[in-house]
Amino acid sequence: MKLTILGCHSATPRWDAHPTSQILEIRGNLVLIDCGEGTQMQLRRYKIKFSRIKHIFISHLHGDHFFGLVGLISTFHLLGRESDMHIYGPKGIKEAILLLLKLGKSWTKFNLYFHELESTAPQLIFEDEKFSVTTIPLDHRVYTNGYLFREKPLPRKLDIDTAKKHNIDVSYFQKIKQGEDAVNENGELIPNKKLTYDPEPSKSYAFCSDTAYYPNIVDQITDVTVLYHESTFLDSHHDLAVKTKHSTSKEAATIAKKANVGKLILGHYSGRYGNLDFFKKEAQELFQNVDLAEDGKVFKI
Amino acid sequence: MKLTILGCHSATPRWDAHPTSQILEIRGNLVLIDCGEGTQMQLRRYKIKFSRIKHIFISHLHGDHFFGLVGLISTFHLLGRESDMHIYGPKGIKEAILLLLKLGKSWTKFNLYFHELESTAPQLIFEDEKFSVTTIPLDHRVYTNGYLFREKPLPRKLDIDTAKKHNIDVSYFQKIKQGEDAVNENGELIPNKKLTYDPEPSKSYAFCSDTAYYPNIVDQITDVTVLYHESTFLDSHHDLAVKTKHSTSKEAATIAKKANVGKLILGHYSGRYGNLDFFKKEAQELFQNVDLAEDGKVFKI
Repeated sequence: MKLTILGCHSATPRWDAHPTSQILEIRGNLVLIDCGEGTQMQLRRYKIKFSRIKHIFISHLHGDHFFGLVGLISTFHLLGRESDMHIYGPKGIKEAILLLLKLGKSWTKFNLYFHELESTAPQLIFEDEKFSVTTIPLDHRVYTNGYLFREKPLPRKLDIDTAKKHNIDVSYFQKIKQGEDAVNENGELIPNKKLTYDPEPSKSYAFCSDTAYYPNIVDQITDVTVLYHESTFLDSHHDLAVKTKHSTSKEAATIAKKANVGKLILGHYSGRYGNLDFFKKEAQELFQNVDLAEDGKVFKI
Repeated sequence: MKLTILGCHSATPRWDAHPTSQILEIRGNLVLIDCGEGTQMQLRRYKIKFSRIKHIFISHLHGDHFFGLVGLISTFHLLGRESDMHIYGPKGIKEAILLLLKLGKSWTKFNLYFHELESTAPQLIFEDEKFSVTTIPLDHRVYTNGYLFREKPLPRKLDIDTAKKHNIDVSYFQKIKQGEDAVNENGELIPNKKLTYDPEPSKSYAFCSDTAYYPNIVDQITDVTVLYHESTFLDSHHDLAVKTKHSTSKEAATIAKKANVGKLILGHYSGRYGNLDFFKKEAQELFQNVDLAEDGKVFKI
């Protein structure tokens, strides 16, 4: 997996501090997570081949997470896109996008599929042979979901040298990769474990923004490889975090620790802070492996 | 008047080539003309005191002219704006903005007044003691208006030295400024013209984007100080201009010449051209005083 941060700042705009949007490359697929105003320019800036995006996941309908969506869809249309586009987001997203397209008489030539969400329980909303996506219901001022991306387990890797040593015929190889034992030319049963390596472990990525401190999510995200958790405020503004249903850096780290995640990435910083290092320091008092999202930064997962 | 170009490129996004938006400072007022995606960031970048904007004029409901509007309104709300905001634009703009605000539960605390336009004839839509605004119906793929901004005439300037020489009492001065003649202490009538200078001439600015070549507008914009006219294409792509209801640089210059305007500013360039100087050269074959809009450029009118 490769995560590219297109924007990681909260709503009040500043020059070159972009609202939430991320590109996740997962098993060769590009998915877009949130789409704040200006996302399509950021996609250009960082030279993302955005015609490859087939799935867009919107967490909630606050402007800094979705006002860039209709512009991006219009641009796909202008660029002659023909392939299907799937959009996942809160109920209402379809009406909004279709109204804006209608006003501009800008109907797309490609199929737009809206998958509107209303459930407050986790839902498996996408699955193919490569990865799955499940909602992570969050606690914010409007209906909001995080998203949990999980790679599917890869097949075991065939140890060709060992297989040859055991005189196993090539016609068995595909079945061995799928986990089956094999019988060699002498009629001996060779167990699968002897003939294969473990595949690369499957990775998982949990995106959690925007949300108040919400320990309900811990069970669902336990042991994920990487957690992105919003940290709009520092602990010194805990009162503001409570009032606006956002999290502090300390709270994000608490969730990361409870869930035993591999790495915590912080983001969605309020514009009031000059030096973002304080977010990292505060989180590291509770949880060591912390990194800061920055516009344009790439994380290999 | 002072015109600041926030964006002057057509719809297909590129990094740092912004869609249409302009700030016009007219007699101490700031008005925003069109509001493509990212306009609020451009306002920050160029350090415009955007809380001073009270009137926003939207030409048409294509995304590159209006997808930044709801984000700007949301930001005014986040920044605690209390003063009224007037928005002028095609019918449908109110429904779109209110739906987006509703989905985010982001009702503004300030009053938002929508002035929806449907007429295909020029309409006086704003007037106070300082300036007026009239629609310029254009010819595009959707209902579109340009806008004509005219400063009101200033009062004549009192020539104090001459007034004193003629023994005119101070109590007359206000009336002289308003154009009245005066009677001096000897009972002589001194005509107004002798006691005043001409005020600075009133300026006018016509914004015309997007539009096909449309000579119907010439009468309305004759003798304006500055005309901004879109030139999406060069004459070599005249067929595309006709097909998409845009103008070529040559057509923009033809309109400028017919209307005898003081200066022509070109903009709304298609992304296919590397060197914008060709737009200027092509226009100058017909009309001399041509300038190119550029993101961030300021024109004193």
